[in-house]
Amino acid sequence: MSSVLWKSVLVTGSSRGIGLQLVTELARSCNRPGIIIATARDPTTSTDLQELSKTYPGVHIVKLDVDSQQSISSALEEVQSIVGNKGLNCLINNAAIGFSMDLNTVTPEAMMKTFQTNSVSPLFVSKTFLPLLQTAAAQSSGMGIHRAAVINISSILGSVEWTWGESANFKSYAYRTSKAALNMLTRCLAVDLGSDGILCMSLHPGWVKTDMGGPHADLTVEESVSGMLSVLSGLTEYDHGGFKDYRGQNLPWL
Amino acid sequence: MSSVLWKSVLVTGSSRGIGLQLVTELARSCNRPGIIIATARDPTTSTDLQELSKTYPGVHIVKLDVDSQQSISSALEEVQSIVGNKGLNCLINNAAIGFSMDLNTVTPEAMMKTFQTNSVSPLFVSKTFLPLLQTAAAQSSGMGIHRAAVINISSILGSVEWTWGESANFKSYAYRTSKAALNMLTRCLAVDLGSDGILCMSLHPGWVKTDMGGPHADLTVEESVSGMLSVLSGLTEYDHGGFKDYRGQNLPWL
Ligand SMILES: NC(=O)c1ccc[n+]([C@@H]2O[C@H](COP(=O)([O-])OP(=O)(O)OC[C@H]3O[C@@H](n4cnc5c(N)ncnc54)[C@H](OP(=O)(O)O)[C@@H]3O)[C@@H](O)[C@H]2O)c1
Ligand SMILES: NC(=O)c1ccc[n+]([C@@H]2O[C@H](COP(=O)([O-])OP(=O)(O)OC[C@H]3O[C@@H](n4cnc5c(N)ncnc54)[C@H](OP(=O)(O)O)[C@@H]3O)[C@@H](O)[C@H]2O)c1
Repeated sequence: MSSVLWKSVLVTGSSRGIGLQLVTELARSCNRPGIIIATARDPTTSTDLQELSKTYPGVHIVKLDVDSQQSISSALEEVQSIVGNKGLNCLINNAAIGFSMDLNTVTPEAMMKTFQTNSVSPLFVSKTFLPLLQTAAAQSSGMGIHRAAVINISSILGSVEWTWGESANFKSYAYRTSKAALNMLTRCLAVDLGSDGILCMSLHPGWVKTDMGGPHADLTVEESVSGMLSVLSGLTEYDHGGFKDYRGQNLPWL
Repeated sequence: MSSVLWKSVLVTGSSRGIGLQLVTELARSCNRPGIIIATARDPTTSTDLQELSKTYPGVHIVKLDVDSQQSISSALEEVQSIVGNKGLNCLINNAAIGFSMDLNTVTPEAMMKTFQTNSVSPLFVSKTFLPLLQTAAAQSSGMGIHRAAVINISSILGSVEWTWGESANFKSYAYRTSKAALNMLTRCLAVDLGSDGILCMSLHPGWVKTDMGGPHADLTVEESVSGMLSVLSGLTEYDHGGFKDYRGQNLPWL
């Protein structure tokens, strides 16, 4: 990772789990981005996040509930004043919820809530922050996080190929459909933002030991995040509209 | 089409467009299913549907707003009394809405409304009617519409491969993401209902001249529906969990 690559980055849902580790590892990196914006819907509840911003002055904490347009708009104003006329280089839509509900237990409310947070909110966070991404994109060329990028943290569970076989044991109508929708969102955004030089892709973190992934997951949050950051730092125009995992492997869309 | 195949079929959203043509062509067929259940959220407003049930006594009109669990449950009771202990052989989730909204015009409300009708409602209609499908499935063997099937009318616009190229001109964040989610739903249902002998698949009607498809679409509603009915009548276990178009061509999932 070089500081040239990472000028500014914003992560949603960085109170805990993968989001917290993303901002933590970015802050600790010797070539850390000049500006790291760690957002959380209630930053006061995350002591880890508070500690991090005390230790690293480049880490800015901004309140952002991705489900609220009012909160997204307030966050935009705050971020605008932090990044100034440099704009924002990288938006990581990481915040999400996961219910493991089977056909018997799934409810319309859980489906709708999950679509809201996992599929709709990433669209409106991206749309609202687009002017800052465009400002950054206008100052550089090529494609990658050195210029401007929207990274949607998705899941292999959003891939239809993974509904058969071993993966069929993971029953979650709400989570799976929301991530399939998110993957489609990535592609629609890629079509629309490509001409501005803004790279869009979906990234699967692996199965990670967090509150969501549970204690039996394959990877520690450190393993997943160090992999993801190295994938992100190597992104080029060939990854635009793509779907990769934390090791940089291409994944089937659905 | 043989009468042995089509014992009973229920279509959602049959007030107009493809749904109306599906029940009309089924009713007119010389080997028509014994029971055709044409559902609509407000059947009184569809004179075509009223005419059809007057002409063909095998056509039952049932009120069904797919977005309301109360309406789904009332419809279940009514359908139960129509089909009796034979159960229901084929459920066609056809009702849907389409907004053509680009990145500038898309709203959170349009996204959520479209997920509700196009992705969530087909799940809860299927879940609610499952006992009737299971009853039918228990009386037969093999896989296909002679036994029991859930057919989700989806769209090639739910397929990620189709976001590039010519198809990129069709901008609709809400519709595309909802149909990608519906395709994932088809697969999740296929995993769960396969062991009951209930076939689940997604079917793309082509681009059809209806209120949704508009006057410049490729196909008349007659062309699309006659193709779809011939695909449906030929379904076997090899189509379980699949995605086909009205000509029987396999489509990429995403
Ligand atoms: N863990 C895995 O195995 C795994 C696998 C594949 C993909 N993923 C994806 O990786 C991402 C991170 O997952 P994780 O494992 O770190 O999950 P996690 O431990 O459950 O953390 C979820 C994060 O999202 C935040 N969040 C939820 N709703 C929010 C909202 N409305 N506004 C703002 N923030 C919100 C949470 O904030 P609060 O603290 O305020 O609740 C929390 O910071 C998600 O997109 C997830 O789908 C995870
Ligand atoms: N036309 C195309 O080119 C095309 C292409 C690909 C896929 N499709 C799919 O084909 C299916 C039928 O489309 P279409 O072209 O016939 O559309 P359409 O002409 O707009 O008709 C939509 C039908 O869905 C019904 N509906 C909507 N919301 C409903 C609800 N909450 N409860 C019950 N019924 C509801 C409508 O009923 P009301 O009369 O009460 O509004 C109407 O009968 C849809 O799944 C669509 O996505 C169409």
